[in-house]
Amino acid sequence: MRVLGIDPGIAIVGFGFIDKIGSKLVPVQYGCITTEAKTPQEERLKQVYESACALMDRYKPDTVAVEKLFFNRNVTTAFSVGQARGVIILAAAQRGLPVAEYTPLQVKQAIVGYGKAEKRQVQEMVRMFLKLSAIPKPDDVADALAVAICHAHSAVLVNKINEVNRS
Amino acid sequence: MRVLGIDPGIAIVGFGFIDKIGSKLVPVQYGCITTEAKTPQEERLKQVYESACALMDRYKPDTVAVEKLFFNRNVTTAFSVGQARGVIILAAAQRGLPVAEYTPLQVKQAIVGYGKAEKRQVQEMVRMFLKLSAIPKPDDVADALAVAICHAHSAVLVNKINEVNRS
Repeated sequence: MRVLGIDPGIAIVGFGFIDKIGSKLVPVQYGCITTEAKTPQEERLKQVYESACALMDRYKPDTVAVEKLFFNRNVTTAFSVGQARGVIILAAAQRGLPVAEYTPLQVKQAIVGYGKAEKRQVQEMVRMFLKLSAIPKPDDVADALAVAICHAHSAVLVNKINEVNRS
Repeated sequence: MRVLGIDPGIAIVGFGFIDKIGSKLVPVQYGCITTEAKTPQEERLKQVYESACALMDRYKPDTVAVEKLFFNRNVTTAFSVGQARGVIILAAAQRGLPVAEYTPLQVKQAIVGYGKAEKRQVQEMVRMFLKLSAIPKPDDVADALAVAICHAHSAVLVNKINEVNRS
């Protein structure tokens, strides 16, 4: 199963593709889509959408996992992030890809084991899970990989529960 | 000049096309795009996007005017409205249409003359400006027409200022 994790934004969108092979997690590709502040927002949204489409078409994920709401940010930020999130989810929907959502709390719990983990701890766990030599930069990329791992772990868990129920 | 006014949302998107012919405003088409709560959000966003594309391709506006931020709403709502707004702005950008944004305050000032006007007053002025027999329902449609009128008025003003500067 190939998961695309997304940390949405308008200036920078972190993305990370990982493969779950058995219980192993293998990084496929990760990085970020960036748009310039001086570009009109409609053009920035188009750039985010087109880059997301191109990435999905190239790396063909089976599912997309996106970070949900940041309750601690303000309404203006939420609006702006929401718009970018909208065009990325649209790109997934147009390809028939299921979209899963995880709050930062759920991501932390899945990666570190408890919801109050610090950012740095999450990033270090991401590095270890994916056997990377360094923490991916900027933070948005590490966050995108974290949500992808979170989804892969959840999927593992769901499968285990299903196995238990079947046995 | 044909203006498409949009009141964005995920459950209901109000839209209104108006023509500005000289100083006259003529309604062309108005209504709303609706999506069902039980439908997955990615599918709802796709429906909003596809309906917006179809409307733009059918009624060929020259410009799109969208309601901006509702500062009084909560972050969850802002996120959800932002996502819908994102896919509509994308549809405009893909067609090379300029997108103008107006706050509810700006819309009220443009329509009624002062920013603290009540919703009902704005709606009644929309009815009068467009010589409609009744206020369009639901509110989202009247709001979409209001933002279209706001943009048409602003465009008139910009033209007048340009004329003054030229003379």
